[in-house]
Amino acid sequence: MTNHLDLFFSAISDPTRRAVIERLTRGPAAVSELHAPHDMALPTFLKHLKVLENAGLTRSTKKGRVRTVHIEAQPLAAAEHWLTTQRKLWEGRLDRLSALAERLEKGGDA
Amino acid sequence: MTNHLDLFFSAISDPTRRAVIERLTRGPAAVSELHAPHDMALPTFLKHLKVLENAGLTRSTKKGRVRTVHIEAQPLAAAEHWLTTQRKLWEGRLDRLSALAERLEKGGDA
Repeated sequence: MTNHLDLFFSAISDPTRRAVIERLTRGPAAVSELHAPHDMALPTFLKHLKVLENAGLTRSTKKGRVRTVHIEAQPLAAAEHWLTTQRKLWEGRLDRLSALAERLEKGGDA
Repeated sequence: MTNHLDLFFSAISDPTRRAVIERLTRGPAAVSELHAPHDMALPTFLKHLKVLENAGLTRSTKKGRVRTVHIEAQPLAAAEHWLTTQRKLWEGRLDRLSALAERLEKGGDA
């Protein structure tokens, strides 16, 4: 079974795809607008968009000939949560080590 | 050029490697201890450790025959920062949309 975090972190491990996410946090955009700043063929760019959509990071709607891409905030929040949890556990360990060092130091003085 | 975030996000897109990071936030561990909970051959597991080390997420030291793996906190913080920035931009946009909707509503009442 492929985990949501697998798909998510894999999706944002590419600079083109991160640039698309950075653009979409400012609001939905048409595929042509998203593609414009990227020096690559449209089919290649569409594959990147597909990876983002498959990872649940974006969804798209079509009106006439224009496809508009929207960001989905929930997976971003879930990934941030994982990272924040790891950092807090790590910092908690540093705090405990520091407290232990302080106790040992005081014990040495007594 | 491969970006640090590319390597980082790619490294944590795998559940085995995330499990290693989760373990290491509690403190350094010997390779054998890290390997124990994972039902895979040691050479396969060592490849996962190599990916983490190449991404700058871990470093290892060797004493006699025991190799100990340590977490490196800085890349975790950098990746968390990228995600937090995206979420804040996104939330800022929602706030502005909400304020706009409120103004339009008030305008409608006047």
